[in-house]
Amino acid sequence: ECILVLNCGSSSLKYSFFDTSHPENVVHGHIERIGLTGTRLVQDGAKGEIVRELPQSGHAEAFDAMLGALVDKGAGVIPDASAISAVGHRVVHGGEKFTNSVLIEDTVLAEIEALNPLAPLHNPVNVLGIREARRIFAAVPHVAVFDTAFHATLPSHAYLYGLPHEYHEKKGVRRYGFHGSSHHYVALAAAQFLLKRPRELKIVSCHLGNGASLCAIDHGRSIDTSMGFTPGEGLIMGTRCGDIDAGVVSFLERTEHLTAAQLDEILNKKSGLLGLSAISNDMREVEHAADDGDLRALTALKTFCYRVRKYIGAYVAAMGGLDVLIFTAGIGQGSAGVRATALQGLQCMGIHLHEQRNREACDGRKISRISTDDSPVTVLVVPTDEERMIARETLRTLSRDYLVHASAAC
Amino acid sequence: ECILVLNCGSSSLKYSFFDTSHPENVVHGHIERIGLTGTRLVQDGAKGEIVRELPQSGHAEAFDAMLGALVDKGAGVIPDASAISAVGHRVVHGGEKFTNSVLIEDTVLAEIEALNPLAPLHNPVNVLGIREARRIFAAVPHVAVFDTAFHATLPSHAYLYGLPHEYHEKKGVRRYGFHGSSHHYVALAAAQFLLKRPRELKIVSCHLGNGASLCAIDHGRSIDTSMGFTPGEGLIMGTRCGDIDAGVVSFLERTEHLTAAQLDEILNKKSGLLGLSAISNDMREVEHAADDGDLRALTALKTFCYRVRKYIGAYVAAMGGLDVLIFTAGIGQGSAGVRATALQGLQCMGIHLHEQRNREACDGRKISRISTDDSPVTVLVVPTDEERMIARETLRTLSRDYLVHASAAC
Ligand SMILES: Nc1ncnc2c1ncn2[C@@H]1O[C@H](COP(=O)(O)OP(=O)(O)O)[C@@H](O)[C@H]1O
Ligand SMILES: Nc1ncnc2c1ncn2[C@@H]1O[C@H](COP(=O)(O)OP(=O)(O)O)[C@@H](O)[C@H]1O
Repeated sequence: ECILVLNCGSSSLKYSFFDTSHPENVVHGHIERIGLTGTRLVQDGAKGEIVRELPQSGHAEAFDAMLGALVDKGAGVIPDASAISAVGHRVVHGGEKFTNSVLIEDTVLAEIEALNPLAPLHNPVNVLGIREARRIFAAVPHVAVFDTAFHATLPSHAYLYGLPHEYHEKKGVRRYGFHGSSHHYVALAAAQFLLKRPRELKIVSCHLGNGASLCAIDHGRSIDTSMGFTPGEGLIMGTRCGDIDAGVVSFLERTEHLTAAQLDEILNKKSGLLGLSAISNDMREVEHAADDGDLRALTALKTFCYRVRKYIGAYVAAMGGLDVLIFTAGIGQGSAGVRATALQGLQCMGIHLHEQRNREACDGRKISRISTDDSPVTVLVVPTDEERMIARETLRTLSRDYLVHASAAC
Repeated sequence: ECILVLNCGSSSLKYSFFDTSHPENVVHGHIERIGLTGTRLVQDGAKGEIVRELPQSGHAEAFDAMLGALVDKGAGVIPDASAISAVGHRVVHGGEKFTNSVLIEDTVLAEIEALNPLAPLHNPVNVLGIREARRIFAAVPHVAVFDTAFHATLPSHAYLYGLPHEYHEKKGVRRYGFHGSSHHYVALAAAQFLLKRPRELKIVSCHLGNGASLCAIDHGRSIDTSMGFTPGEGLIMGTRCGDIDAGVVSFLERTEHLTAAQLDEILNKKSGLLGLSAISNDMREVEHAADDGDLRALTALKTFCYRVRKYIGAYVAAMGGLDVLIFTAGIGQGSAGVRATALQGLQCMGIHLHEQRNREACDGRKISRISTDDSPVTVLVVPTDEERMIARETLRTLSRDYLVHASAAC
């Protein structure tokens, strides 16, 4: 099977190609600045790289350009669009409706659109991407894989806020959680690496990228996660503030006379590492500045790590123990300093870091064990691969669907 | 010395009287519904009880009524106002300015007033109370004891939100924490009970009342606490929602067209146990309903306890270990069920509850050890006494001040 995985954003299109008969034949590509000047396609695969400047235009043209690169005589991987056997779509928000990946039919698409108010920045453009992809790959099944679905197993005491119950029951206000494909992928990869089944393990997964979240995975099921109703809750991120007293929001509205839209912009685009350090949303730059003695950068770094540490403690409490702690995504895979600082003092929970292994585990290509041999908790660095997880989910959904149809027929 | 402790609210006045030469001679009183119909004074002490209906009027009349009860021929404790040697005032917010209790002079009062924007519901009326008390007890020193001051030792990585740094530097937006007198009192009491010094212990104190907060006390110093910029952050409380995704606030503003003031009212007055259970803000009623099978009440109870558990885990991680866990305030002292549910699974952190001791520790008058004899962490129920702590702080501040003046003089 040849699976195309799509992640359509407001000004970007990321795509990946997986070929189940030729596992080495993987392609990753992205088109940036869609609708803006300087639109550009970059594709990288086993057969070579393609870089193309595109004329300023919309998503439809971007999808056509993607197809053009996939069928390119030189670095392309398929002869024509019909070689694709299924398309998997990353969809940010599945609400309470979608607790699993789903085959996309017209009714499903309408239901995803109905969730737009929950994720106004993401879902509408995910829907647009599905429409474009169905135009180009009209003959094949399309599957929606939701960032939220892995967290559908959260118990109510973990997903409820302390609000009047009708806000949950009538408006769907609750913790949803995101980064599901990443947490799911690294949990499976960690179990495989340890020759265990996921259902035997208590795992905390720390996805520390530009967006960042932790997830408590108890015997294979997500039971809590730090992102909430939106991806803005929880950890300090590149530009998002994470956990904050709601009273700060009303204080700023009252005393700074900021509108809701301005506040949204501040909390999501100007906060986090960028806001605390006044230097960058990029952890590498914050670390360099802190090394050079910049006090705000050092504070940003410590505050980031402290919050990771508190969430680890909270999730060990939530599961009543811990077997495996995973670091993943850009910062989790790349920064030995963040990992060491986040784990300070956690020996009391059986987490013993091996300093040298930790320092050496930064290439980000393979799984590394960074705990000591006698550490009760195994600490791993696991490179994430959300696209591969979406491809797997696409196949799993189609085979499940196939079985359902087959058993209905015979 | 005869110390009067005052806690002046918008429609209430609570007062306590302590006599250092006659420790048994304690009086607690309160006046309710000031400025409303049905104003009423209740005073209870070693010499008897006083209950008085008062005419509808303002704070000045309430203060006069208090003095009347204190000098009452029957159940009163002093011959006249001059018998009071010092007055301690509970002040909610000390901002970054007041990191310790302080002798009140005119400049200090102006500085407390300048903090009104940080605590618009509490500080203005605390200031009003100080003015009235200085009118009646003009000849004696008055001391302000701040709810926030005990948390002045928080490190920046614990008190900073992930906001642009200027919000902290210029506007004072940060975690302050509250309930300081209570956390301080129970930590000292626990250490004394265990024949240890506070500076030898890692303590987590759970103040679970109508307002509720946890505090991590590392070697005698508060290093983190769950209330934040306002008392609305952290745990689920009687009517406050506690931790919530700031995105929920903007979602509700956007989709429900609620104003900031309406939202404030919902998050602070209609949420928490009351909002989740749709029954009551009173934990006893929620527990009864849950026992009778009410699903929402059961969910409210579980959600309340789960959040306590996560904070305990977070603070064990923050301190790198734990020696003593304390439960206090109405729910903490009164509900064995809440304590047991909150501690489920925490054996992994060395917390072993003794079921029978826990069940029996509900009279709320003395300190009880409710952990097993071999539990690495000692779990205690400690009745809180914020008024006594304020009296002590008042004396400590005066003697410190006395020493400063004395050493300046000789
Ligand atoms: N070697 C490294 N050391 C520290 N941080 C790194 C390293 N490599 C990448 N990062 C950080 O990872 C973040 C991006 O992570 P990534 O997982 O690519 O994010 P996302 O997919 O959420 O956009 C950036 O903050 C970047 O600075
Ligand atoms: N025996 C008890 N069992 C359970 N909850 C109790 C008990 N006694 C008091 N409470 C609860 O304690 C809360 C009030 O605590 P308290 O410390 O008096 O609050 P505050 O001083 O913050 O107003 C109420 O929710 C009440 O239901």
